[in-house]
Amino acid sequence: MEKMLSPRSIAVVGASDKKGKIGNILVKNLKNKKYTGSIFPINLRHKIIEGLKVHESVLEIKEKVDLAIIALPAFLILPILDDCIAKKIKNIIIISAGFAESGKDGQKRELLIKKIAEENDLNILGPNCLGFINTHKNINASFAKKKVLAGNVGLISQSGAFITGLLDMAKEEDLGFSTIVSLGNKTILDEINFLEYLANDPKTKVIGLYLENIKKGRQFYNTVAKITQKKPVLILKAGNSQKVQKAIMSHTGAMAGEIDVLKKAFEDAGALYFEDIATFWQTLKMFNNHPLPQNNKLVVLTNAGGPGVIITDLIEKKSILDFYNFTNEEKQTIKVTLPGASSVENPIDILGDADSTRYEDSLKELVKIKKIGAVLALITPQAQTDVDNILKVIKKSEDKSSFPIIPILIGAKIKNAFQFPQETVNALEKISEFQAFQKITKKNKKEPLKFDILASAKIRSIVKNAQEEKRNIFFYEESLELMRYYGVNSLKASLIDENFKISKIPKCLVMKIDDPGLLHKMAQGGVKTGIKGTAKFKTNLKKLRKKFKNKKIIIQEQVEKGTEIIIGLKKDSNFGPILLCGIGGILTEIFDEKLLWILPVSKAEIKKDLRKSKLGKIFQKEDLNLDSLVDEIDKVAKIGWQNSWLKELDINPMFFYQGSKKPLAVDIKVKIDNS
Amino acid sequence: MEKMLSPRSIAVVGASDKKGKIGNILVKNLKNKKYTGSIFPINLRHKIIEGLKVHESVLEIKEKVDLAIIALPAFLILPILDDCIAKKIKNIIIISAGFAESGKDGQKRELLIKKIAEENDLNILGPNCLGFINTHKNINASFAKKKVLAGNVGLISQSGAFITGLLDMAKEEDLGFSTIVSLGNKTILDEINFLEYLANDPKTKVIGLYLENIKKGRQFYNTVAKITQKKPVLILKAGNSQKVQKAIMSHTGAMAGEIDVLKKAFEDAGALYFEDIATFWQTLKMFNNHPLPQNNKLVVLTNAGGPGVIITDLIEKKSILDFYNFTNEEKQTIKVTLPGASSVENPIDILGDADSTRYEDSLKELVKIKKIGAVLALITPQAQTDVDNILKVIKKSEDKSSFPIIPILIGAKIKNAFQFPQETVNALEKISEFQAFQKITKKNKKEPLKFDILASAKIRSIVKNAQEEKRNIFFYEESLELMRYYGVNSLKASLIDENFKISKIPKCLVMKIDDPGLLHKMAQGGVKTGIKGTAKFKTNLKKLRKKFKNKKIIIQEQVEKGTEIIIGLKKDSNFGPILLCGIGGILTEIFDEKLLWILPVSKAEIKKDLRKSKLGKIFQKEDLNLDSLVDEIDKVAKIGWQNSWLKELDINPMFFYQGSKKPLAVDIKVKIDNS
Repeated sequence: MEKMLSPRSIAVVGASDKKGKIGNILVKNLKNKKYTGSIFPINLRHKIIEGLKVHESVLEIKEKVDLAIIALPAFLILPILDDCIAKKIKNIIIISAGFAESGKDGQKRELLIKKIAEENDLNILGPNCLGFINTHKNINASFAKKKVLAGNVGLISQSGAFITGLLDMAKEEDLGFSTIVSLGNKTILDEINFLEYLANDPKTKVIGLYLENIKKGRQFYNTVAKITQKKPVLILKAGNSQKVQKAIMSHTGAMAGEIDVLKKAFEDAGALYFEDIATFWQTLKMFNNHPLPQNNKLVVLTNAGGPGVIITDLIEKKSILDFYNFTNEEKQTIKVTLPGASSVENPIDILGDADSTRYEDSLKELVKIKKIGAVLALITPQAQTDVDNILKVIKKSEDKSSFPIIPILIGAKIKNAFQFPQETVNALEKISEFQAFQKITKKNKKEPLKFDILASAKIRSIVKNAQEEKRNIFFYEESLELMRYYGVNSLKASLIDENFKISKIPKCLVMKIDDPGLLHKMAQGGVKTGIKGTAKFKTNLKKLRKKFKNKKIIIQEQVEKGTEIIIGLKKDSNFGPILLCGIGGILTEIFDEKLLWILPVSKAEIKKDLRKSKLGKIFQKEDLNLDSLVDEIDKVAKIGWQNSWLKELDINPMFFYQGSKKPLAVDIKVKIDNS
Repeated sequence: MEKMLSPRSIAVVGASDKKGKIGNILVKNLKNKKYTGSIFPINLRHKIIEGLKVHESVLEIKEKVDLAIIALPAFLILPILDDCIAKKIKNIIIISAGFAESGKDGQKRELLIKKIAEENDLNILGPNCLGFINTHKNINASFAKKKVLAGNVGLISQSGAFITGLLDMAKEEDLGFSTIVSLGNKTILDEINFLEYLANDPKTKVIGLYLENIKKGRQFYNTVAKITQKKPVLILKAGNSQKVQKAIMSHTGAMAGEIDVLKKAFEDAGALYFEDIATFWQTLKMFNNHPLPQNNKLVVLTNAGGPGVIITDLIEKKSILDFYNFTNEEKQTIKVTLPGASSVENPIDILGDADSTRYEDSLKELVKIKKIGAVLALITPQAQTDVDNILKVIKKSEDKSSFPIIPILIGAKIKNAFQFPQETVNALEKISEFQAFQKITKKNKKEPLKFDILASAKIRSIVKNAQEEKRNIFFYEESLELMRYYGVNSLKASLIDENFKISKIPKCLVMKIDDPGLLHKMAQGGVKTGIKGTAKFKTNLKKLRKKFKNKKIIIQEQVEKGTEIIIGLKKDSNFGPILLCGIGGILTEIFDEKLLWILPVSKAEIKKDLRKSKLGKIFQKEDLNLDSLVDEIDKVAKIGWQNSWLKELDINPMFFYQGSKKPLAVDIKVKIDNS
């Protein structure tokens, strides 16, 4: 990656002398007085481009070439790759579009390039990308026309336009970058490669990622988890629409959408997740421009009561943020520097006529209070407000301080100041989340998916049998076998077949259709409850047999209701088996409360997460044993880790009871992965 | 109000010739070539200020004076008021600070001014304010130094600094105002007076309010409800901290904080509520700069896939917003104007090389589709993006369109364009809320609080008795009497006194301390449950008597649990009795679900709100009769409307059962308002 991002010689294949052409912008961008390496434009018709000597092919270049940038139409690229291989160029950027993003022909073309790259061990960035910029090495190997300041933000983006947009914003804020990479179609190199580079890049203080998809989930997780022990990683993830998910069988399925799993992975890895550009940008800015807060105890300093109250309301709504409580002594000391009418509570109101001297005087006292986490300095431009000087005074005070002093200017946008209370508080919340993560015990690495071997021959034969019958859902008796093997206490059922004896009927029972095709048996009238006595048994049986011809019918004892919990598993295309737990019964859909773990997970971790959750609070309030819930979830976790054939498992509901009565799984659905 | 805001002659008492002094800025701001009225600076020492003839007192002015602006130290103001009264000046602005906001002396001073104003029928704006600006009459009767463009936003603010901040933002956006009023301490004139003015001001298209407190709740409600049938009213309310509310007795009390009641009032009146300046500002801008959307079906047009997907994700999260579905024919027509690789789904991706012509061509087709609600036109500045032209093309297209076309520039902030997807979607959500409100049946006016007369002599005597005993909480038997009178089916209790007969003991019972001082009797060990048989009865009685000496002890039958609901009342200082309903039992604190009504309220309205709520969904799922809940809530509403002495009522829980079994109030707390 070092040679890719810090090449000492660069060939531009498809260089052009026509202004505005990508092949021309690329050469222009590369030309930089401070870059000491060589630049070789490649073109068949010209001798000189932008004052540089042109070669007809990379093969004609005598020196060693570290990096080739290709900006030719897609269909011309294969022979160029051959040239690069012949010239032993290992690092290649394919700028050109016309690949997987553009239909079937493009997809084929991209697969071919992938094959060639793998066979020849080529590092390819793109295709369909903007290139990269390494400011500290003075290399702009992209066709982004914007001026880029050198700085400490590392940026990796799956969208080139997102980069140009951010550069346009950065220009207004004097915000500088270390390395910017446009990933394009990620045929060979992807976010993981560049994350690993930025992790060790001393110039990079904070990393921003814009991603539309993540393919190597576990590897991505491990890379990010390692980085966040040292640097913050901000992830803006687009494409989280839930529209596609409507056809899912079980609650478990619906509860673990792709983005839910990713959010959990980000959280576990200590990365910060964003849905909008605004907060992503503000947080990036705050990480870059200010030291980290010392703790979550904030002080608000303001020259206007109203905006001071607004930001106080907003801070109070964030559970992770708090206010610093001044001692009486501290209040007195600050008060001395201020006019009589000032209020030295928190917010400190230094009044509407405050000038830069008054800001300076009060900040001087605040800087002495070492237990403050951060100061938010609000400026509302009034008659006596010398905004520019106040901003200077704030910067000077911050330089002398052990905590950040963050200027918020309630008025026209000014460089390096935040503009609105909400955006500032949102960014601070994100930073506090990062700091909170750094304090807790580090999570385990996610090993590559390796399922344990399932010891039960019986279960293996059930799966095989179902597959042979082209069923992807278990019969209830088959699900019970799986539960039995893992020690999940489950409600028995009797099949009403020729061997069924009426003497077996329990006092009060439930009668159900047991059929893989009937996904919503309750809604479809396939369940009858509260059946007492043989007469009712017979009429209900008749009804079900009439409505559902030739389907299996089972009966179960109608048991005492407990607190209803859903426990389940779902195979995620990215992370493998995902373990889930949520509130069951009527509350499931009304209150969207769910917990989710990427396997493997320890019992301690399950318990810790449950304790913080609403589910944990319900268990506490209802005097139920949380450990018993942890035990049952752990059993399901084992099922997930030992059965690679499992697509979905849905225990819904499982009843939990007060006292010593064992939890009971009342209904179980098992779906096989036939993909 | 007309003479106040459009005076034909203005005196400035405390005018000054010293630059930077408020008395000087006021005169300078008033001087405007287009203002045809007279300006009279008042000063004892000078003859000419800013080229205008100076008088020594308002009494010396020969002409009639419509408005006096006073900018003198607070202690000098009383004699000036006398002069104004003598000169028959009815409209006065007191700019000066030093009143209620500044301690006890100031408070006295303000009360005195209030008295004088009321006796002499003076319209006073302030004190402690910035003044007002009426752009269409060319009057800047304020000391805000910012230039203000004439336009259609009416602004009323309780903070002068908030106004200067907003003017600073407006400057950058060419956003114009009709009238701006700084309320100050609201001694005489308040938001209601100016709202009534702006309601009828043809120059005002949208009204923004910044408020820190609202004192005349019902009147405010009625004024706003009338305006929102014609114009949007945006309210930014500061000072919503929940800190003060910790010492409240009941769930009901805690559930109806001041801001909860206000939010409900805003919602009922069709006003839009904001917590932060950013969304307030963006929504104001969108109302001002664009026509209203035709419906909630949006089209996203973008030159960059990533940002298009980001905004799509955000729109999908807002239940009030939706996407327009193109017909195949429409897709074909749009497709013709675009390059082959463009995607005509929603978002429409017109590709990274889109210039203003391509934007224009696709907008031309979109404008023809009359069923679109609004178009969001995203621009990410890339190599071929001619941003200024694209913005012009968008404006031109909107002028020809029946729906708004909203430009969002993902880059450096540009005048009249939104910058981030989230802020745009938030503003659109608010506008859709306003439009949805305008469509529904208009709410009733809130009459001034007039309690109906309570017919029951018995209840009146209970209240009197409690007051005489200096108790502010009912004994359980007293609460039962209130419930009986209103037909609320409640769990009986027997007092264990000298007349108590052991034969009266039910099979299973609950034993409780019944004492006004014991607010949390359960937590304090004053409740024993599940008592069976005389032996247990006696030991528990002994324990309670030992722990709670000389306190009343009652017993109740332990009844079958139903679905637990809280119903209550709370007297709000602003709106009078507030009716509440929420989930009871263990879920109360875990899921913060509550409904709130400002009395009086109809059964139909209660039912409509319940249906939309989680509570309604729980009733549906549990097969409970929602009408029975409406009935019980309605009974409590009557209690609220007939008992002016009531401070809080808390029925917690009330059990609701399936089938025909009547709902049952199990515990009842009644608190008397002794204030």
